[in-house]
Amino acid sequence: MGSGEGHFCIELENGTKLGGNDLGLEKEPKTIAIEDAVKVLLQGLGEDINREGIKKTPFRVAKALRDGTRGYEQKVKDIVQGALFPEVGLHDGVGHAGGAGGLVLVRDLDFFSYCESCLLPFQVKCHVGYVPSGQRVLGLSKLSRVADIFAKRLQDPQRLADEVCSALHLGINPAGVAVVLQCLHIPFPNPDSKHQGWIKALVSSGSGVFRNKNSDAWGDYMGLLKFRGVTVEKIPTRDSMGNNWCPSYASSEVVAANPGMVAAVASILRSLGEDPLRKELEETPGHFLNWLINFRNTKLNGFTCGIKALLKHDEECSHNHQQIHSELNLPFWSQCEHHLLPFHGVVHIGYLCPEGSNPIENSLLQSIVHFYGFKLQVQERLTRQIAETVSSISGRDTMVVVEAYHTCMISRGIEKFGSNTATIAVLGRFSTDPAARAMFLERIPNSATSGIL
Amino acid sequence: MGSGEGHFCIELENGTKLGGNDLGLEKEPKTIAIEDAVKVLLQGLGEDINREGIKKTPFRVAKALRDGTRGYEQKVKDIVQGALFPEVGLHDGVGHAGGAGGLVLVRDLDFFSYCESCLLPFQVKCHVGYVPSGQRVLGLSKLSRVADIFAKRLQDPQRLADEVCSALHLGINPAGVAVVLQCLHIPFPNPDSKHQGWIKALVSSGSGVFRNKNSDAWGDYMGLLKFRGVTVEKIPTRDSMGNNWCPSYASSEVVAANPGMVAAVASILRSLGEDPLRKELEETPGHFLNWLINFRNTKLNGFTCGIKALLKHDEECSHNHQQIHSELNLPFWSQCEHHLLPFHGVVHIGYLCPEGSNPIENSLLQSIVHFYGFKLQVQERLTRQIAETVSSISGRDTMVVVEAYHTCMISRGIEKFGSNTATIAVLGRFSTDPAARAMFLERIPNSATSGIL
Repeated sequence: MGSGEGHFCIELENGTKLGGNDLGLEKEPKTIAIEDAVKVLLQGLGEDINREGIKKTPFRVAKALRDGTRGYEQKVKDIVQGALFPEVGLHDGVGHAGGAGGLVLVRDLDFFSYCESCLLPFQVKCHVGYVPSGQRVLGLSKLSRVADIFAKRLQDPQRLADEVCSALHLGINPAGVAVVLQCLHIPFPNPDSKHQGWIKALVSSGSGVFRNKNSDAWGDYMGLLKFRGVTVEKIPTRDSMGNNWCPSYASSEVVAANPGMVAAVASILRSLGEDPLRKELEETPGHFLNWLINFRNTKLNGFTCGIKALLKHDEECSHNHQQIHSELNLPFWSQCEHHLLPFHGVVHIGYLCPEGSNPIENSLLQSIVHFYGFKLQVQERLTRQIAETVSSISGRDTMVVVEAYHTCMISRGIEKFGSNTATIAVLGRFSTDPAARAMFLERIPNSATSGIL
Repeated sequence: MGSGEGHFCIELENGTKLGGNDLGLEKEPKTIAIEDAVKVLLQGLGEDINREGIKKTPFRVAKALRDGTRGYEQKVKDIVQGALFPEVGLHDGVGHAGGAGGLVLVRDLDFFSYCESCLLPFQVKCHVGYVPSGQRVLGLSKLSRVADIFAKRLQDPQRLADEVCSALHLGINPAGVAVVLQCLHIPFPNPDSKHQGWIKALVSSGSGVFRNKNSDAWGDYMGLLKFRGVTVEKIPTRDSMGNNWCPSYASSEVVAANPGMVAAVASILRSLGEDPLRKELEETPGHFLNWLINFRNTKLNGFTCGIKALLKHDEECSHNHQQIHSELNLPFWSQCEHHLLPFHGVVHIGYLCPEGSNPIENSLLQSIVHFYGFKLQVQERLTRQIAETVSSISGRDTMVVVEAYHTCMISRGIEKFGSNTATIAVLGRFSTDPAARAMFLERIPNSATSGIL
C-alpha cells in the first residue's frame, strides 16, 4: 500500500462511521463519481434514493468498491522488502531444505476478489508455495499479503493465479512459485429455480521449477494438497477452460439496456482505475445489469389467483385437527439494499393445515419467495413478508426460516468468510407454541453439509 | 475506534513495513515499553537480540499486541450509531417478525482473542443473535464488529460472551441478545508427548428474552445451532466451568522465575492498559513464562547416545536392499522467532533403511523433534534441522514434512483463520527419486480431518 493510501484504509476499517476522518474519502472525486453512478442505478431499479434504508447506500457502495479494489494502488516490493530472512540450506549432503530449496506451502488462505465479467465478489481459497533460493526465506504472512494485492482487483481466476505467481517470482526470486486457487462464484438465478451450488473454478500457475506441470516439484506440491480435493487431473488446462466461468455468460436474460445505467457502470469501472474498453470489461456493464435488473422494484407477481383459491379452501375446513406442512430449501436470490450486494440462500416454510387437506403447491411458495427475494431487501423484511403472504394463504399459522450467505459479510471490512445469517418469523400458533416451532426446526436439514449455503 | 487511533491502525494493516507512517507508533511510549520488555524476555531465553531473525521481533511483538488489544480503546456506540435501520414488524396478526421480534442470528463468525491467563491468542467461533424491538434492526456486520471490540482484549471465554451480550443489549436495546462462543486454545506441551487436540470451551450468555436458558427464545436459538455441534446440554453451567480452561493452570512446570522476566511481562500488561494486580492477571506472568521457558536456547538434549548406537547399526548393513520407514504425526511445539507466538503441529519423518533392519525408535525421533521444536524457530529451519539429524542417524536418505498452524497467521494483521503451512526437506535418495517422495507423501494422513491441525 502506498503511504498516500493510508488514510483511505482507516475509514474502511471503521465501516460506515461518518466521523471527521471520513471527510477525506467522501470528498474525493472518485468516490463522488461512484456515488453518482450508484444513484443512477438505484433510480433505474425504481427506487426512491432518499428512502431511509438506501439513502447512504451510494456512499457505502463507493467505499466498499474502492476498498475491494485497493490492490491497484499497492506494490509487492513494499510488502516483501524487509521480510526476506537469511536461512541457510543443508549443511552438507545432497538434497533440498531450508533457504536453499525445500518446498514451503501455505494452504487454505481465504480471500475475495471481484469478478471482472459481472462485478460481483467471488471467494478464493488460495494455496501458495515456493522453493527458496539464495539462502533467504520469506515471512509466511507475506505470501498472503502479496496474493491479496492481486485479489483486490477486478479479476478472473486464471489471471489472478498468474499475477500472484509472477509477482512473487519477481519479488523474491526463488527457485519457483506455485499457486492453486479454488474459486467460488455466486450462482445467477436460473429459470427452473432449482437448487444450484456455487460455480467453481480450479486454476493453477507455476514459475521456475513449477513451470512444467509434469515436473517433480509439482508432484510434491500436489502431494501436499491431495486432501483438499485438488488433484492434477482436476485442474483444467488453460485451453479447455476458456474465460467464461462467470455465470453471467450463461444468463439467458439480456437487458434492454437503459443507456444511463450502462454509462453509470462504465463510470464506476473508470473510477476504480480500469478501462471500460479493455476487452474483458466490454460486456461487464451488460452482465452486471443483467444481474441487477432482477431486483428492480416491481409490483408484478404471478400468485394472486393462487392466493384466492387457497383462502377459500382454508375457510372450508379451518376447524379440523391440524398438522404441520413444510416446504424446505426453496432457493432465493436477493440484493442487500444497504450495500447493493447479493445475499442468497434458502427459505424454509412451515404452516398448519387441516389434516388431510392438500398442501400449498411448491410452485406457488417458490413464486412468493422469488417475488420478495428479487428486490432490494434486508433479510429480516424478506422473512416477514414471506411469512405474512403464506399466512394469508394458509390461514394464519405460519413459520418461516431464511438461511442466507451475505456477500457484504465477506467483501466489506469484516471479511467473515464462513459466516451466514438465519432469521425467523412466526405467526399465529407458531408464536405461542414452542413445541410446534421446535418440530419445524427439527425438519430443517443441515445447511453446512448440504452445500446450499 | 476513536479517531485518534486511526493512525495506529494503518500501520498494523501494513505489516512490518517501516515507512514514514510507522514513526508515530514506533515512538509511542507504550510501544517502546513493550519493546523493552520483549528484549528482556528474549535475553532471558538466551537469545542474542541483535541476531538477524529476531532483531525486529520486539517491534513486531509490540505492534501485534497493541493491535490485538485495540478493543480497549473502541466504543460500541461508534459502531451501532447510524447502523440501526427502521423496519416494521408484522402488519397484523399474532406473532414475531421483522423489526418487532423474530430472531436474527449470525452464525460462524471467526475471531481471535488473547487468553488473560497465559497471554496466548485463542480462536473464537461466535454465534450472535438478537430479537429486534422498537421497529429497528441492526446492520448484520455490526454484530460482528461489536463482538470484535471485546475479543480484542485480554479475555476468558465466559467474560467475552457476557461482555458482547451486555454491550449489544445496551447498544441496541432489543428484546434480547444471545451469544454462544466455541473457543479453541492451543495445547501446552504435555509430558507424554501424546497427540493432544485443542482445548475447547463452549460458553453462552443471554439477556432479555434469552436471560433464562429454559426460555422459548433459547429453544429457537439452539434449534438453529443444532448442526454446529452446539446443544443446550453441552454448554456447561457457569458454576461447573470455573475459570480455568486455560491449559496453563494444568501445566506441571513451575518456572523458577527470573524476576526480570516476570517484571517484563507485568510491564507489557500495564502498557496494554491492564492492571497486573487484577485478580485474573496475578498469575499471568508466571503462566506466560511457563510457556515461554520451553523455548529457551539450550544445547541440552537426550538423544546423543541413541545417535551413536544407530550409526553403528547403519554401517553394518548399508549395502542391503532398502525400504521406506516412516514415523507419522509426531507432535511438536515451537515458537515463531519473528513474532514470539506459537506454531504447533505434526512432523512426518521418512527414511530409507536396509530391509529387515529395525526402525529408529519412535521415542528417539520424538526427542529430536522436541529438541529442535522447543526453541525460537522458523518452520523452514525446523524442517531442515530434523532432516539433517535423522539423516545422520539413518544414513543419509531422509524426508521430513512439517505441517503447522501458526498463531501469528491468525492474530496478526492478515487473520487467516483456517490457514496452515507445510514444509518439506529431502536428503539423499529422496532428493533425486520423485517416486520415493510420492510414496512417502501418500502415507501422510489428512491433517484437515484428523483434527491435529
